Amino acid sequence: MKGKTFIIAGPSGVGKGTIIQALFAQQKNLYFSVSATTRAPRPGEVDGVHYHFLTREQFLRWIEEDAFLEHAEYIGNFYGTPKRYVDEAMDRGEDVILDIEVQGAEQVYQKRPDTIRIFIAPPSWQELERRLTSRGTETPEKVRSRLARAREEFSYAEGYNYVVINNTVEEAVREIQAIICAEHCRPAQRIALINGM
Amino acid sequence: MKGKTFIIAGPSGVGKGTIIQALFAQQKNLYFSVSATTRAPRPGEVDGVHYHFLTREQFLRWIEEDAFLEHAEYIGNFYGTPKRYVDEAMDRGEDVILDIEVQGAEQVYQKRPDTIRIFIAPPSWQELERRLTSRGTETPEKVRSRLARAREEFSYAEGYNYVVINNTVEEAVREIQAIICAEHCRPAQRIALINGM
Repeated sequence: MKGKTFIIAGPSGVGKGTIIQALFAQQKNLYFSVSATTRAPRPGEVDGVHYHFLTREQFLRWIEEDAFLEHAEYIGNFYGTPKRYVDEAMDRGEDVILDIEVQGAEQVYQKRPDTIRIFIAPPSWQELERRLTSRGTETPEKVRSRLARAREEFSYAEGYNYVVINNTVEEAVREIQAIICAEHCRPAQRIALINGM
Repeated sequence: MKGKTFIIAGPSGVGKGTIIQALFAQQKNLYFSVSATTRAPRPGEVDGVHYHFLTREQFLRWIEEDAFLEHAEYIGNFYGTPKRYVDEAMDRGEDVILDIEVQGAEQVYQKRPDTIRIFIAPPSWQELERRLTSRGTETPEKVRSRLARAREEFSYAEGYNYVVINNTVEEAVREIQAIICAEHCRPAQRIALINGM
């Protein structure tokens, strides 16, 4: 049975990375979509594992060939989600997790409206502020700017299929697993299965 | 947080009753909607537990007052799902399970399009035939007529939110639990929660 694609998006500081890591530790048959980038590999980074490292020329050609589900330029470098690996994983029957920004999620949704979009939200705005502040690495202005951006990104949550609140990592993972299970109960595939098609 | 209503429908012989029983043994915060009827109580049947027993006059008045989510007449008796108990349970924060016929499910959906509809399906048509035959209580004609009816009911499955295949009771219950969990991750309620409304 063909896999499905799930976007996991959410504001900075919400704990998305930890949730995705815990999800992969618990759930089988998942494929993590590796981004392509034109930035130089850092020490220890492996091509195809941390990123697909492309030259600027390659990246521009892929854009031209419509080979990305979404892409963006950020501080002089390109980043993008290659279609090919996502499609190959789904054909193998694996569910694909896209860990992307809210803007990228909108691009994917335009190209693939059947992508399931999950927004990871903080339990409250106070809690997100506490988490951002407790890192101790951010100036008060930086915290304020991140909070403002989080509120702006949150305005997209209404259009998502699901909103998972990061009260605890365990609870958030359990909800994402339930969402994946439920989405495999949609009629189309199931009816084909029963009718033996 | 307000509960939600889930319709569980499916053809005769598919094992719906067993699945619902197992679901209630495992899942908390569920309310089983008790039907109203004009038929006489059988020995041991308790009013409000097995059925809400109404006189024909009461039942007709309730129809007039639009007090049912669905109702039907069957061999001279009325059967129906009272709105009131469903609404009270949801207000208490409980999820409501409606165990009803495909025709009744259509009526509920007309009145309450936000009701989540789950269709319980057999693994295959051969398997449903085997289950109906192995009861040993049905004549071959009766089995054929039940199968024909099941196929007709199955034509509604496409419009349902979910199709759960009864491969095993455990698997079916796990999927229904996932569906209930996922449906509580829908944006509207969650966003209100985060914004502290």
